Amino acid sequence: MTPLRHAQGDPLPSWNDGSPKQSILSFVAAVSREGSPDFVPAPQRIATFDNDGTLWCEQPMYVQLAFALDRVKALSKQHPEWTDNQPFKAVLENDMDALAEAGYKGLVELVMATHAGMSTADFAKICVGWLKTARHPRFNRPYTELVYQPMLELLAYLRNSGFKTFIVSGGGIEFMRSWSEQVYGVPPEEVVGSSIETRFTVLNGRAELIHLPEINFIDDGDGKPVSINKHIGQRPIAAFGNSDGDLQMLQWATMSSGRRLGLIVHHTDAAREYAYDRESNFGYLDEALDAAKQSNWTLVSMKDDWKRVFQFE
Amino acid sequence: MTPLRHAQGDPLPSWNDGSPKQSILSFVAAVSREGSPDFVPAPQRIATFDNDGTLWCEQPMYVQLAFALDRVKALSKQHPEWTDNQPFKAVLENDMDALAEAGYKGLVELVMATHAGMSTADFAKICVGWLKTARHPRFNRPYTELVYQPMLELLAYLRNSGFKTFIVSGGGIEFMRSWSEQVYGVPPEEVVGSSIETRFTVLNGRAELIHLPEINFIDDGDGKPVSINKHIGQRPIAAFGNSDGDLQMLQWATMSSGRRLGLIVHHTDAAREYAYDRESNFGYLDEALDAAKQSNWTLVSMKDDWKRVFQFE
Repeated sequence: MTPLRHAQGDPLPSWNDGSPKQSILSFVAAVSREGSPDFVPAPQRIATFDNDGTLWCEQPMYVQLAFALDRVKALSKQHPEWTDNQPFKAVLENDMDALAEAGYKGLVELVMATHAGMSTADFAKICVGWLKTARHPRFNRPYTELVYQPMLELLAYLRNSGFKTFIVSGGGIEFMRSWSEQVYGVPPEEVVGSSIETRFTVLNGRAELIHLPEINFIDDGDGKPVSINKHIGQRPIAAFGNSDGDLQMLQWATMSSGRRLGLIVHHTDAAREYAYDRESNFGYLDEALDAAKQSNWTLVSMKDDWKRVFQFE
Repeated sequence: MTPLRHAQGDPLPSWNDGSPKQSILSFVAAVSREGSPDFVPAPQRIATFDNDGTLWCEQPMYVQLAFALDRVKALSKQHPEWTDNQPFKAVLENDMDALAEAGYKGLVELVMATHAGMSTADFAKICVGWLKTARHPRFNRPYTELVYQPMLELLAYLRNSGFKTFIVSGGGIEFMRSWSEQVYGVPPEEVVGSSIETRFTVLNGRAELIHLPEINFIDDGDGKPVSINKHIGQRPIAAFGNSDGDLQMLQWATMSSGRRLGLIVHHTDAAREYAYDRESNFGYLDEALDAAKQSNWTLVSMKDDWKRVFQFE
């Protein structure tokens, strides 16, 4: 149906030969070749990708948390009260222990203070502006360069094979949409994520949606199959993740009849990226690591299976 | 970018010549011709359509309500208590006055009794099965034949002009998705609607989503811009509705900079379909009718502007 642009060459040049690459190639061939017993018509070739830790780097902290911390600093002049109040005080003093102590409740307060009280259009502008100047603390590059080259090839390969590739992430839906098309080739309507409430308003003849300081949906864990059903309305036949927050998404994609692919990126490469799994503050991989073995999901070792991690290497 | 398949012929043959048809043609030309001062790149050509009363017939009652009433009757043997309890008693006795008296609360009870307690896959099967046998009381045809031919042409014309056409309806998202692709050419991921809560579960090695008896989101009025932002993440440049439930969607699409199209289908044709507006039980058009005049939205008179309403005429 869709021409295989890479049919002549290697569609995954940054992947080492090995069983993960083979499992991807044989899955795609099985579901996209007409006449194959596992053939799936193109409109049903739905693939879902987690973002943080699956498509781009999530260490030493989620990029969107770095964004929130920078925003707190940028807004602190308008909020003199923050110098005495947690979790803001911790942010302004770069006190990561105090920040960790503030826990989930503190995190929500930071998100609300930096994501609410503005229109959707203004928020998108703030995100784009921040991404232009912010730099990763270790690699000293824009965060949008810290995307995994092998995964970009995988996204393109799937799309060239008639798949629709959705992002389904615990990250903020509007934050991701501000750069997903440019960086991943994924348009806004194919991005699913966590969200805060919005309110419709007409002001001076212009219609706007205003961000409210209230959580709408947390797109993680059990929430991922729920949001996939809401946004996509079809069960994916392939799902890609890297942490326990992706467990149910991979179950939803694979625990059904027909040929399926579940794949987990295992961060095993401290030299080129990071090495972490069961104990990490961000993107811990514990239950899903065990499930991968039980369920025959493809486990990708960053160190062994990827020739290159980032494009700039 | 996308070839205009109908460039040689009339893309809207079921529309009479007149100002509504002209306003559609000139809008589409303005936004899709490269070099036009109003040119919009294809990925941003987003059009949203209400469903009930805009794409198919919503009289003498919403199709999904007819579905719920039929389901109550089909399930009544398993629920002997329904013969004595409203709103079920009213349904079983075809007592429309008593049903109206049960109001919104009664409606929600009917929806929960007929839409909850099953998996998403089982619900879709029930919808498909019902649509095969159910008949419209006046036209004695499957509901899926009561779609408006001029609107099918409009959907196709927009898609051929590089638009993405989304359905954004107060109707149930899963109900619509069970037939939207076949009837409108709109795939599940481009359907937005009201929803009930779901819960993820793994049972006997299979992953399922189960419908819970709880409203998740009502996709009507103020809710439509909110859901458009959530699902699509881009502001539509064209919106199509027929009732006050579509007012805010049309405001969201049109009250912004750049060339925009807002269009309202006015039910003026009692002979071929129905005639109703400010006083109707289903799809009343009051505030949005006034707003159409103030805002220069295109007002389509079914009687005057459509050569044909249904394909079977």
